[in-house]
Amino acid sequence: MADEKVMLGHGSGGSMMKRIIDEVFFEAYGTDELLRGDDAAVLPALAPGERLAYSTDSFVVTPHFFPGGDIGRLAVCGTVNDVATSGARPLYLSCAFILEEGFPMDDLRRICASMAEAAREAGVRFVTGDTKVVNRGHGDGIYINTSGVGALAEGVNLGGAQIRPGDAVLVSGTLGDHGITIMSCREGLNFSANIESDAAPLNHLIADVLAAAPNTRCFRDPTRGGIASTLNELAEQSGTDITVDEDAIPVKDAVLGACEMLGYDVMQVANEGKMVCVVAADEAEAALAAMRKSPYGADAAIIGRVTEADPVRGPKVFLRTAFGSTRILDMLVGEQLPRIC
Amino acid sequence: MADEKVMLGHGSGGSMMKRIIDEVFFEAYGTDELLRGDDAAVLPALAPGERLAYSTDSFVVTPHFFPGGDIGRLAVCGTVNDVATSGARPLYLSCAFILEEGFPMDDLRRICASMAEAAREAGVRFVTGDTKVVNRGHGDGIYINTSGVGALAEGVNLGGAQIRPGDAVLVSGTLGDHGITIMSCREGLNFSANIESDAAPLNHLIADVLAAAPNTRCFRDPTRGGIASTLNELAEQSGTDITVDEDAIPVKDAVLGACEMLGYDVMQVANEGKMVCVVAADEAEAALAAMRKSPYGADAAIIGRVTEADPVRGPKVFLRTAFGSTRILDMLVGEQLPRIC
Repeated sequence: MADEKVMLGHGSGGSMMKRIIDEVFFEAYGTDELLRGDDAAVLPALAPGERLAYSTDSFVVTPHFFPGGDIGRLAVCGTVNDVATSGARPLYLSCAFILEEGFPMDDLRRICASMAEAAREAGVRFVTGDTKVVNRGHGDGIYINTSGVGALAEGVNLGGAQIRPGDAVLVSGTLGDHGITIMSCREGLNFSANIESDAAPLNHLIADVLAAAPNTRCFRDPTRGGIASTLNELAEQSGTDITVDEDAIPVKDAVLGACEMLGYDVMQVANEGKMVCVVAADEAEAALAAMRKSPYGADAAIIGRVTEADPVRGPKVFLRTAFGSTRILDMLVGEQLPRIC
Repeated sequence: MADEKVMLGHGSGGSMMKRIIDEVFFEAYGTDELLRGDDAAVLPALAPGERLAYSTDSFVVTPHFFPGGDIGRLAVCGTVNDVATSGARPLYLSCAFILEEGFPMDDLRRICASMAEAAREAGVRFVTGDTKVVNRGHGDGIYINTSGVGALAEGVNLGGAQIRPGDAVLVSGTLGDHGITIMSCREGLNFSANIESDAAPLNHLIADVLAAAPNTRCFRDPTRGGIASTLNELAEQSGTDITVDEDAIPVKDAVLGACEMLGYDVMQVANEGKMVCVVAADEAEAALAAMRKSPYGADAAIIGRVTEADPVRGPKVFLRTAFGSTRILDMLVGEQLPRIC
């Protein structure tokens, strides 16, 4: 069956669809809820007072497989991380495939195995799913949507709006790895064997930071648009200025070299396994130490400070360059590198 | 801006994406959670003991607009109905778009307005979303994923496995309307001005049936694969035989005529606003009366009975034809009509 392909019938709702569900999806990450085969999964009540955290993302990255990960790993980590940014424990995932007729069944199996592994690492379970097949020429092999639900303990209220002047800004590791990996794969460039995607589930790292720094204001996942867009969103949500130090921002040499060659600003390049975190200044060192204990936080750093915004000019993000000058760091405009996730 | 098109930059994570979110999505169906702009929506705790119901579906139907609805109405009703089949009150939806570069912005606005209207009717709110844009030639204008979360009261335990011999099988209205509408649109056929999609949110109808017939065993949404696939799934889940009467099954004349001309079995044609319901025999009339009171249940009917399956042969579905003979009603094999939803 090495040359088995996805066919339109696999999305029919009939017996072929039942087979792909049984032989591919259940095989990789079957759970009681999925096996039950009802239209909706029924999940236990949360603890009294626990709120729901809920997020969704579709994944359209090409290529589907790349150093450090694949579209399946991204689809799990991306949604787990989005749910976790609220401070919630991610619990359940949905997974919906849009497959293009002719997609190799072996690639689908490999992607599902990778999703299962990432879900195990994050401690989340697939409980509901959907499969659609579109005609050849109307997709790009595979698109994956995941949504995720988590439980948020009472008293945890994170968000960009909680940020205030004086706070410290941290990042959990080196920037730009994912974006540059995808770009170099796609363009057939080979900058360095050392560049690979950082796609990783960060929910355990986040839980550790929250335990160490209870006055954490917010977490944010600097994916599309890079950390530049993330910081601008946070400045706008909180009505503050944010100033980051170029010298303090961790970037791998190979990634920096690739960005310089291609004219990209690493601050606008996408990440998939990094977290921006804003904490009360007196808890910054504790948060940093918690990050560095995680396997995904070894290169974590304190990169900047929050200050009051000029009420007339409005909130802005500044980059203090390695040469000592300061420039405004803008949100990405238009498209830098499409289909990065 | 009548000829404005979706561009790759609208999926960039930068300022163009922010604009499409503000001007199209918030404009149509903004909620506090969406406006907050965090990575995950935070939602209130459910009542003590209430469980979660959770479902997802992607929508790839072509054409995007058709008599009786559009891809946006489908995307809301499909997920609302899947969540409601568990007996839960649907509360929240996620919405993720995969847009193809060049898709007309006005079509997107029209689809979003339709989603907002269907959500209002169902009483659900969009709380989290995502937007991706793929290059021209790698999509089909618009694909929509929705997932939905509902609250399920203590003591309500519906599902195919609850069905037992003696139960009655009901359907909430005429079969085949959606599938035949899409097919005739797509092929440029015009069977009758009377055929239109039945896409509708059925959560209120379901709640009324549950109140009237507390021994309801399960609801199921006979979408892809039609009622034939649904009944076969239910027979298998419960290990019973199900026999339905052709004479009792409501089908519009125009739909039946179209099916006969095209060689389709109406039992295998997709529906998007119908519910199959299995109830204890002594509550069948009460359930039927509750359905008929709904604007979407006027043509509801009791169509069959559940009996014990032969332990050797295993569970089967039978159709007693109008001529008095009985034949096995099989699940759809392969593909009848792709991209119906």
